[in-house]
Amino acid sequence: MNFGSDNQAGVSPRILQTLVEAASGIQSAYGNDEWSQRAEQMLGEAFGTPVKVFFVTTGTAANCLALSTIAQPWNAVVCHNMAHIAVDENSAPALFTGGASLLPMATDNGKISAEDLAAFVERTPHDAPHNMVISGLSISQVTENGLVYQPQEIAALATQAHALGLRVHMDGARLANAVAALQCHPGDITWRAGVDVLSLGASKNGALMAEAVVFFDQALAQNFSLRIKRSGQLVSKSRTIGAQFCAWLEGGHWMELARHANAMASKLSAALAATPSVRLSWPTQANEVFVLMPIALYEQLRAQGVRCTDWYASSVPAGTQLQAGEVVVRFVTSWSSTDEEITALMDLVHSRQRQAA
Amino acid sequence: MNFGSDNQAGVSPRILQTLVEAASGIQSAYGNDEWSQRAEQMLGEAFGTPVKVFFVTTGTAANCLALSTIAQPWNAVVCHNMAHIAVDENSAPALFTGGASLLPMATDNGKISAEDLAAFVERTPHDAPHNMVISGLSISQVTENGLVYQPQEIAALATQAHALGLRVHMDGARLANAVAALQCHPGDITWRAGVDVLSLGASKNGALMAEAVVFFDQALAQNFSLRIKRSGQLVSKSRTIGAQFCAWLEGGHWMELARHANAMASKLSAALAATPSVRLSWPTQANEVFVLMPIALYEQLRAQGVRCTDWYASSVPAGTQLQAGEVVVRFVTSWSSTDEEITALMDLVHSRQRQAA
Amino acid sequence: MNFGSDNQAGVSPRILQTLVEAASGIQSAYGNDEWSQRAEQMLGEAFGTPVKVFFVTTGTAANCLALSTIAQPWNAVVCHNMAHIAVDENSAPALFTGGASLLPMATDNGKISAEDLAAFVERTPHDAPHNMVISGLSISQVTENGLVYQPQEIAALATQAHALGLRVHMDGARLANAVAALQCHPGDITWRAGVDVLSLGASKNGALMAEAVVFFDQALAQNFSLRIKRSGQLVSKSRTIGAQFCAWLEGGHWMELARHANAMASKLSAALAATPSVRLSWPTQANEVFVLMPIALYEQLRAQGVRCTDWYASSVPAGTQLQAGEVVVRFVTSWSSTDEEITALMDLVHSRQRQAA
Amino acid sequence: MNFGSDNQAGVSPRILQTLVEAASGIQSAYGNDEWSQRAEQMLGEAFGTPVKVFFVTTGTAANCLALSTIAQPWNAVVCHNMAHIAVDENSAPALFTGGASLLPMATDNGKISAEDLAAFVERTPHDAPHNMVISGLSISQVTENGLVYQPQEIAALATQAHALGLRVHMDGARLANAVAALQCHPGDITWRAGVDVLSLGASKNGALMAEAVVFFDQALAQNFSLRIKRSGQLVSKSRTIGAQFCAWLEGGHWMELARHANAMASKLSAALAATPSVRLSWPTQANEVFVLMPIALYEQLRAQGVRCTDWYASSVPAGTQLQAGEVVVRFVTSWSSTDEEITALMDLVHSRQRQAA
Repeated sequence: MNFGSDNQAGVSPRILQTLVEAASGIQSAYGNDEWSQRAEQMLGEAFGTPVKVFFVTTGTAANCLALSTIAQPWNAVVCHNMAHIAVDENSAPALFTGGASLLPMATDNGKISAEDLAAFVERTPHDAPHNMVISGLSISQVTENGLVYQPQEIAALATQAHALGLRVHMDGARLANAVAALQCHPGDITWRAGVDVLSLGASKNGALMAEAVVFFDQALAQNFSLRIKRSGQLVSKSRTIGAQFCAWLEGGHWMELARHANAMASKLSAALAATPSVRLSWPTQANEVFVLMPIALYEQLRAQGVRCTDWYASSVPAGTQLQAGEVVVRFVTSWSSTDEEITALMDLVHSRQRQAA
Repeated sequence: MNFGSDNQAGVSPRILQTLVEAASGIQSAYGNDEWSQRAEQMLGEAFGTPVKVFFVTTGTAANCLALSTIAQPWNAVVCHNMAHIAVDENSAPALFTGGASLLPMATDNGKISAEDLAAFVERTPHDAPHNMVISGLSISQVTENGLVYQPQEIAALATQAHALGLRVHMDGARLANAVAALQCHPGDITWRAGVDVLSLGASKNGALMAEAVVFFDQALAQNFSLRIKRSGQLVSKSRTIGAQFCAWLEGGHWMELARHANAMASKLSAALAATPSVRLSWPTQANEVFVLMPIALYEQLRAQGVRCTDWYASSVPAGTQLQAGEVVVRFVTSWSSTDEEITALMDLVHSRQRQAA
Repeated sequence: MNFGSDNQAGVSPRILQTLVEAASGIQSAYGNDEWSQRAEQMLGEAFGTPVKVFFVTTGTAANCLALSTIAQPWNAVVCHNMAHIAVDENSAPALFTGGASLLPMATDNGKISAEDLAAFVERTPHDAPHNMVISGLSISQVTENGLVYQPQEIAALATQAHALGLRVHMDGARLANAVAALQCHPGDITWRAGVDVLSLGASKNGALMAEAVVFFDQALAQNFSLRIKRSGQLVSKSRTIGAQFCAWLEGGHWMELARHANAMASKLSAALAATPSVRLSWPTQANEVFVLMPIALYEQLRAQGVRCTDWYASSVPAGTQLQAGEVVVRFVTSWSSTDEEITALMDLVHSRQRQAA
Repeated sequence: MNFGSDNQAGVSPRILQTLVEAASGIQSAYGNDEWSQRAEQMLGEAFGTPVKVFFVTTGTAANCLALSTIAQPWNAVVCHNMAHIAVDENSAPALFTGGASLLPMATDNGKISAEDLAAFVERTPHDAPHNMVISGLSISQVTENGLVYQPQEIAALATQAHALGLRVHMDGARLANAVAALQCHPGDITWRAGVDVLSLGASKNGALMAEAVVFFDQALAQNFSLRIKRSGQLVSKSRTIGAQFCAWLEGGHWMELARHANAMASKLSAALAATPSVRLSWPTQANEVFVLMPIALYEQLRAQGVRCTDWYASSVPAGTQLQAGEVVVRFVTSWSSTDEEITALMDLVHSRQRQAA
């Protein structure tokens, strides 16, 4: 019963098979291999626009290298205060940007609206050179509390950002889940909505280790190969990553994987929400389910081998009050989650409920 | 006919099979997986001493993260002026160390001797805080001109370094080839000889993408998980690398791979050295062959699909004079090089010789 | 009528005279001059404990160099969200620390209490290596909203900080004003209260350009001369700064200067508070007066040559609501402020009041 | 008898008087004061071209901030291997540039010629992104071995640099001495010869603490106020430095000071060169005298209170061989050196000679 994280799942057989195929034989190194070049082309086709793509090994590297193209050391990037770049990437943003700062902002629902952004920038001191100069906005799609931005929300936000002189980065560690949830074209929530540079993750959606920085504004990609090299992200057998992306995109495989993960989350969410003493923290829109439950239940689940994570108490919606003995718990589904896992989990939950009654 | 680089070769079937096995099923992320833990243990057994190991995705990351543990931003690290860290890793050493400097030194033969080091440190200005403070020595085993340090050479050098207050790093991107060449215990050219921290590469010796930082002095590993994370090197599906190292080490597979590569280089070296108008630049001790040849021959080989690399004119031994129209060329063999490739290459060489005659 | 900032004031004649004296003749450079050495000794006497002192040229350099001794690049330092280091030093903290982060927190009154700190650290994610590791606390004495910490407040806060494993830095750009306001021993609000390292500014209190980093925990000073040098803060004619500190401290001159500035602020504060349509934003405890006033009044004062500054709307106490057309204005007094200036300012205010009536 | 360094000398009375004048009264802070603005204008007049100027507190800051405008973190700057930036500024260049590297080169005479540069760049590996990308050239005028570049030498060198795509920085810590020695217009050895950005020092030529970054190519100055601020170089009472430059330039005072220092060096050089057992290491062209002398003589001079410095053995001209017991000694004269000091020094030398005879 693995609901710990989609990055604990195994690798999709189709991706693994392609990786095995790519692993044999001679290929030029350092990004000049055929697989990487084909993957870049396929990404352009998938997004419906020419893109410049660089492959890296982790989401942290993808995010922070992308940020380095929109923030000089004296700049600041606005993001949500739950953002992965603000919370879970240690000091990597400062390292990769040479010292730029994040300005994390709180909002009611984990998303940033155009109005939120305008008000935040307005009230942030901006008397250069004393204050930092805000140069960018970074948003996560899916957000860190499992919500999905609508295309028009992103478009309004990016329009506002550009009007304020900011460039727009999207952390797309779970972009595939968002596309699947919205049943939209990938371009609708990225470049058509005003995203300048995207971190695109495949590792949480069936790949072994495959992350990309996708430039819709190709001018930002200037010198990027130097940034890649100096940060130790230029993999010699670069086919490793290119081949995974090829298989991930081929025939819409990424959407199959994401749709499955999302469907499993929906099912789990409905089952948990129907359970007395468990309540949803946030609506389930992609492949993450956030609930509030008694700590005793959480601990019993963990004791019986369920992988799930106690989450930040501060992550609940404004107005929601944790009751005594209540904790926030995150369940993540993946391409490999099964009905049987969900049934087994719910059996444990119901069994515990009966004991408690 | 691939003699371009050992990092262009494919992946050993045994390693690939283990990777496939590891790719399925649930595993904890971020280094807490079973494969990574087993690989660390196996490395300790291979080196004959307890080690603290961290897995990373590139040799540049391994080298520069290792350097960051022996050099504060105001420190300098002595290395050879052919060293990969000085020449081929762009500005990564400065990034990962927060600004430390390399002090590249020239020597007659691509190795640094204990006497070389003592003299170099002596003549380098050392009036702190104005001058940088030398804190480390980094050597490559195999060296960048294809030579192998003898255990006693390393021991004498490390003893000298320690006496001067320097810590010792070894760039072991081709350490397996050195061990195979010397037919020694891996400990003899590392910790027993005084190496404090080792960058150990498997990617050039049959793996897909597997690099490690191996701490013999475990005190240096303090805070290293934070360094790993902030530099974007903490891979979520960390089993990716751990599993490769397990297969690489299992049953001495790494030595089989390295011995084969070395043997192919010996054979190629002998054949080339016997060719009129071709002369060896350096003796062939591991899996790299450096020769001087007419540029016309080099270009014809390239035109006929031979992968090999024109090398720095400055890399020849002191006293060797390039003749007009002569270039330095590097041939690298790998675990997957074949007799047929060498024969085919030499046929081209001899055919060209006949034309030229 | 200069109430713009105490750093716009001229230089105390006694300090200037000493500087002139020091400027002639030969002195060793780079901190080895007699004046710097005497200043260090006098600072130890003033604080009543042996100290290690380094002189720098700006408050930003003093603060950020001090922070670099309590925060590694992967660490974070808690501070108030009004703190000078968080708001007014651009990205200098990241530069000098090699990438460490600030974690600015809001409080009701511009000070941080022991309870505030404990609660903030508790709710900040601390799952290393993913999250940053909090290693320090920085407070300003006087605070950025003009309040003065009581000795026991600092002691309780520092005790809490140390219990949490944090080191304590104090930004003492206006420390002299705090000492004068509290009529305490300088040691009572620094080392005796648990401060580990202090940025001590004289430039805002009568000096020309004189800032110091004062180490009460001398172990933190290790390698500090290297940090000074590499950040371009090792002044060749270091007597420049040492001599100013000597004169500043000599015979309690710093206290005379600070007491005068504080007294002028008290007087101005009382006069402004007695004015209809003007209200104090914060009590006046040192040499800064924060008021809310109609924007028309503010603009008229500025038009008539009064130097004062419109301040952040967000800087008012929790619960205070700005009325339409009301702005926050900061008046700063200095050692050179005069009764005449205050009278002239108040005449303008009253004149405007009459017009408005 | 102070020949230790021109930065150990006192301050010219005219400069000091102006500083005293500037120190009184109210002035806007952070570079917005009248003195700084006037100094910028006077510098433009002195150089005969509009310039953008920023004032900083040390030569290290001036040099390294200037370098940051011509070198991104992945770039390298060519300089002489005796250059102050390479030897005497610790790791400041890496800090201020965010990790750029220096590529120090040896030449026969301490200067870099156009041919030296072309050959050096040619033989330096330049396969991006693996190798660093050379983006700049930095030269010192006066050089670190006391020589003065002729205008046409600089012009040829800068033309070569520009042709190679490099920007040209000049370390002018002793530029005044060079101008005085050449009796040329300051523009002739700077912008007219192709220098893009200049570090101009007054501290070694009569000022207390006054350094400037002078942009001839004003496009390089973009964002420079942010660089200044974040590196802790934005002095609040900025008049401190502006006023010194005003007095330094006023009525050609800087040339008076420099001519005197140079004349004293000439005299000293001639006297030393005429002494048996002492020989000049380099011709004396500005205000530094480099000699080789018996170590016993050097030590006796030091014991009798003469300030002078034993210099790097490696700094002698190619072909010069130090004899046993011979050391290199540097004598520096300043605006305040006197005939009496030189006479007293030579009396000691001659007295020692007699004893030795």
